[in-house]
Amino acid sequence: MIIVLKPKISKKAETEVIQEIRRLGYRPHIMRGVARTVIGAIGDELTHTSLETLANTFPKSVESVLPIQKKYKLVSREAHPANSTVKVGKHVVIGGNKFHVMAGPCSVEGEKQLLTTAVAVAKAGATMLRGGAFKPRTSPYEFQGLGEKGLKLLAKARKETGLPVITELLSENHADLVAEYADILQIGARNAQNFQLLIAAAKTGKPVLLKRGLSMRIQEWLLAGEYVLANENPNLLFCERGIRTFETYTRNTLDLSTIPIIKQEAHSPIVIDPSQGAGRADLVMSMCKGAVAMGCDALLIEVHPNPAEAWSDGAQQLSLNHFATLMQELKPFIAAAGRE
Amino acid sequence: MIIVLKPKISKKAETEVIQEIRRLGYRPHIMRGVARTVIGAIGDELTHTSLETLANTFPKSVESVLPIQKKYKLVSREAHPANSTVKVGKHVVIGGNKFHVMAGPCSVEGEKQLLTTAVAVAKAGATMLRGGAFKPRTSPYEFQGLGEKGLKLLAKARKETGLPVITELLSENHADLVAEYADILQIGARNAQNFQLLIAAAKTGKPVLLKRGLSMRIQEWLLAGEYVLANENPNLLFCERGIRTFETYTRNTLDLSTIPIIKQEAHSPIVIDPSQGAGRADLVMSMCKGAVAMGCDALLIEVHPNPAEAWSDGAQQLSLNHFATLMQELKPFIAAAGRE
Amino acid sequence: MIIVLKPKISKKAETEVIQEIRRLGYRPHIMRGVARTVIGAIGDELTHTSLETLANTFPKSVESVLPIQKKYKLVSREAHPANSTVKVGKHVVIGGNKFHVMAGPCSVEGEKQLLTTAVAVAKAGATMLRGGAFKPRTSPYEFQGLGEKGLKLLAKARKETGLPVITELLSENHADLVAEYADILQIGARNAQNFQLLIAAAKTGKPVLLKRGLSMRIQEWLLAGEYVLANENPNLLFCERGIRTFETYTRNTLDLSTIPIIKQEAHSPIVIDPSQGAGRADLVMSMCKGAVAMGCDALLIEVHPNPAEAWSDGAQQLSLNHFATLMQELKPFIAAAGRE
Amino acid sequence: MIIVLKPKISKKAETEVIQEIRRLGYRPHIMRGVARTVIGAIGDELTHTSLETLANTFPKSVESVLPIQKKYKLVSREAHPANSTVKVGKHVVIGGNKFHVMAGPCSVEGEKQLLTTAVAVAKAGATMLRGGAFKPRTSPYEFQGLGEKGLKLLAKARKETGLPVITELLSENHADLVAEYADILQIGARNAQNFQLLIAAAKTGKPVLLKRGLSMRIQEWLLAGEYVLANENPNLLFCERGIRTFETYTRNTLDLSTIPIIKQEAHSPIVIDPSQGAGRADLVMSMCKGAVAMGCDALLIEVHPNPAEAWSDGAQQLSLNHFATLMQELKPFIAAAGRE
Repeated sequence: MIIVLKPKISKKAETEVIQEIRRLGYRPHIMRGVARTVIGAIGDELTHTSLETLANTFPKSVESVLPIQKKYKLVSREAHPANSTVKVGKHVVIGGNKFHVMAGPCSVEGEKQLLTTAVAVAKAGATMLRGGAFKPRTSPYEFQGLGEKGLKLLAKARKETGLPVITELLSENHADLVAEYADILQIGARNAQNFQLLIAAAKTGKPVLLKRGLSMRIQEWLLAGEYVLANENPNLLFCERGIRTFETYTRNTLDLSTIPIIKQEAHSPIVIDPSQGAGRADLVMSMCKGAVAMGCDALLIEVHPNPAEAWSDGAQQLSLNHFATLMQELKPFIAAAGRE
Repeated sequence: MIIVLKPKISKKAETEVIQEIRRLGYRPHIMRGVARTVIGAIGDELTHTSLETLANTFPKSVESVLPIQKKYKLVSREAHPANSTVKVGKHVVIGGNKFHVMAGPCSVEGEKQLLTTAVAVAKAGATMLRGGAFKPRTSPYEFQGLGEKGLKLLAKARKETGLPVITELLSENHADLVAEYADILQIGARNAQNFQLLIAAAKTGKPVLLKRGLSMRIQEWLLAGEYVLANENPNLLFCERGIRTFETYTRNTLDLSTIPIIKQEAHSPIVIDPSQGAGRADLVMSMCKGAVAMGCDALLIEVHPNPAEAWSDGAQQLSLNHFATLMQELKPFIAAAGRE
Repeated sequence: MIIVLKPKISKKAETEVIQEIRRLGYRPHIMRGVARTVIGAIGDELTHTSLETLANTFPKSVESVLPIQKKYKLVSREAHPANSTVKVGKHVVIGGNKFHVMAGPCSVEGEKQLLTTAVAVAKAGATMLRGGAFKPRTSPYEFQGLGEKGLKLLAKARKETGLPVITELLSENHADLVAEYADILQIGARNAQNFQLLIAAAKTGKPVLLKRGLSMRIQEWLLAGEYVLANENPNLLFCERGIRTFETYTRNTLDLSTIPIIKQEAHSPIVIDPSQGAGRADLVMSMCKGAVAMGCDALLIEVHPNPAEAWSDGAQQLSLNHFATLMQELKPFIAAAGRE
Repeated sequence: MIIVLKPKISKKAETEVIQEIRRLGYRPHIMRGVARTVIGAIGDELTHTSLETLANTFPKSVESVLPIQKKYKLVSREAHPANSTVKVGKHVVIGGNKFHVMAGPCSVEGEKQLLTTAVAVAKAGATMLRGGAFKPRTSPYEFQGLGEKGLKLLAKARKETGLPVITELLSENHADLVAEYADILQIGARNAQNFQLLIAAAKTGKPVLLKRGLSMRIQEWLLAGEYVLANENPNLLFCERGIRTFETYTRNTLDLSTIPIIKQEAHSPIVIDPSQGAGRADLVMSMCKGAVAMGCDALLIEVHPNPAEAWSDGAQQLSLNHFATLMQELKPFIAAAGRE
């Protein structure tokens, strides 16, 4: 930690700060600069008491306290310099040279809706099936998902198409149930710092796709991922789905800069969800092209046989035709990005 | 719902939109304006399929869809014009004429720390004790709370001081346990849209204090409160604790405008947490004065016998002396606000 | 305009609102819905008094007022369905099939620095030269640009390389001076709603590149562009350079969704500035690829012969080698996007 | 500056960084910590080349660069420990014990409108008159103000009521004209980083009220204020008017924490504008109470004889009666804050 002292404080005030740093187990190292004196406190920030309280303890002497160490370890490139890959089901490997597309309806609504979609997206080239069985809804009066019945339909669609299945986990109490049916457990944006849920998901051993929270800084997202790795589950996928900003034209602002940043800071694959990111079907095509070009490992796209009748988020789901066209148009960009 | 059509679309395109509105169960009502044609779709938005998909279904004909109805019912002043009050323990009533202060440490760290604080804040005029037994931490390597041992210490402090106790509920699985010890269950900002947790908290029957999420719009906060009321628990308290903005001087931006807004839209009491709101002890005094003047019903303040040694959030906790001074300085503002 | 009335108001209160709508020159059209009564006010919102005050005038009767018309006209696709192109200098046309790259130093620092850069970027394939002669700086103690001397150096570099020149206009008083030397006038993010400056820039007749303000909604950006077109200058370019969000890893959050959105709403070309957008040279490559794939018309990139010695924004400028590599790597994406 | 090195870099890489620090004129001071090596670069950050480029120059060796010094000097409490007061006209002193209220219409619309308002607000207790003669409008089709005619009406109203006058300066070219009529020059939020305008305003010698920009960090606001003081005008007032956030219920989010923060960091008075801050007349009363309690020096409030007919921002202007009631209700809070 770096402790910046206020200018012109007395020798006595300075000594008090230094003694406190020592008392908390750090070794102080003093640098006298032109405008400020700065103290480096040598010691492991992950195992010692934080010094961030010093500005509160000595409000007249301490101007600011700057942490130096990164708080995440296991997700960091420092811990694991090579890219990690995540194996899903028997044949899918995310994070390698092959590019993946996970597609399907926002909510599982019934057998016909799901199977029609699954067959169509498989035909168009999708390599995984998405679909919500438990749905987090802003209002208690909105459709909350089919629950276990939805999970069973997903398993049936997997059997028919061979596509592994990703679905959202909403409750600690459902972790075992969802893990029984799903190939990837999705943690939604609103639960991205529901640490109990992250731990429960990690403990199932299944791959965990962690969406970025609506106002989560990248460091916080990495730390949430750390909860998965620290609970002995190495199968972590980060998924950017748009952050909340002042803009109202789109539902969220898709932050595609997360692709190079996550690649730089962490070793886990990065997935982009342009459907949530825009909240509008008409922007999905362009965003997919950008995400592919910037090097993401997979896309997560909402597709519905009849978006106008969708029980949730109809405004952002692609029709089956629209999805097939998208898959065609992505091809040259996947090739330009050096992926299959 | 109001459907705004694009200018200069054909009669045929218009008819298709109107037929779709009818098919989804609404009665269309057409208004031809100077620059646009607008269709009012008459029907209950809470029970019908949403029309928000129309812009996706007819991208060339429909410019935008504007919802008219508010999505929340039970929390609304329309449903309950008078102020609600929430009874806590045997003697405390929040939302009435008496102003309340909930004070105590961020985390329960041990018997001596908690009892010292409890006795001191009671003496200074606090009417409730706060303290975290289960702590949500951004990093898995930070102190996660004493758990049930912390709850027992809170119960002991209540017995010694007579102060009812508020503590955070983190996991659905702990709902009964925490409700056994606490007088108010707190739902933290990171769990404000963890709907499963809200339902579990509501079902205990204990009062629920719902913090605003870091990037929650007021309408979403009201809807999260609706989850509590809709699960037959009328004892809801809203708590503003700062939102996330671009500013970096403070940890969060405390949005005091929530006081008049919640009073206008809803009937439940509103509590302000200036400790989380600022993340800095030196701003708490001023924020408390503003909150009292603007008409909040209670304050939630972090107090620690030795902030420099706090196991969590030391930078924002007040010392016992600082808290006693605060309580003195608040008196004229409480009187000016017409509260006791 | 759509006026939403509060539920259960009296007939008399309703009549008062309707009379006021009539008095302000609109024709009221009443729709009685299930939960609310809604009044459509027929009349041109661009020429009539706004009705947005109704909620202030009748706080007990009017719940909300929703505008229907878009406020911009000339920048809109409705006014001009085809893409506009902007001719720059004698040979450059932006917005057509050919993709353009504007490159050069953040600030013009001297003849050698500028000419070295200009020759190198031209060789690497850039088609325009950028460079700041007047610099807006957050602090009055930072380098403010070489002024007219910088403009002369830009003109010299243009003569030597044939590259047209883009530079920032900071002051109404410099409009004629800057227009004398520059081929495009750039309006920076901090001046994006400095309407006097926009008017002065428009009146020079030179093409105007309008950066998006740090917290400008897309509708506001379009309206700022409207100031240029309404002052009889059709040569407008929009330039996204990142918005301000809560994220601190990058200096700004580059909002690439502006590419499909501007293409949809407006007819002017869209340029992306990844240097400002990221504030970090190491992210520029990836962002350029994404921008190209998503369909932008040109890139604006900061390049410096020795970023470590740059007098401004050194952290985000590419070296000459880094730029040459970038131009090579962009080629397959430009081809995939169907551009030259 | 503090330079944080990446872990496990070679001795050679470290030496290169150290040499570069020396070459740029700083004295390096090395601290070897547990997880990182940190270099303190001793030298004045205000006069030396910034080291922020080091992370760009040595991307494999340098993790981050942390500035230590504050960039503002003259606005700082360090430079001027006591509160500054600003004299306005002959009798008004802002920043002293007396509390001030500046009230008047958003726009000057005509003689009757202005004089009616001026007389009424003076009678209710306002001590200054506000009114816009030059108006910055998001759309070029909205009313842009009466210009010089508006300034003359403000002078007339001052003569009749004795109230000094505050009005907005929009253009460098109007600085002398506006200064001839006004007692305070207001710089609006959209021009808060229009540094040319700040310099022009400062040079008139008249007091300058600097509104906070929509997405301006407090440090940037202080630096914009530095432009005024550095141009030898000590008569600076900061004015908070709400920042842009994700919330849509209010037009802006009024950040009242700026009151204690500006008091702590700077010596100039702080004014609160709740009318712009909320964008809704119904929230102004509560916000004024909070602002007074938190210690602001003055309020800036929009008042109109007939808000429904206002030519701009009618939704946020108070009626004359509403303003008179406000002034009555504020009295106990002004007293509680120890002001007259």
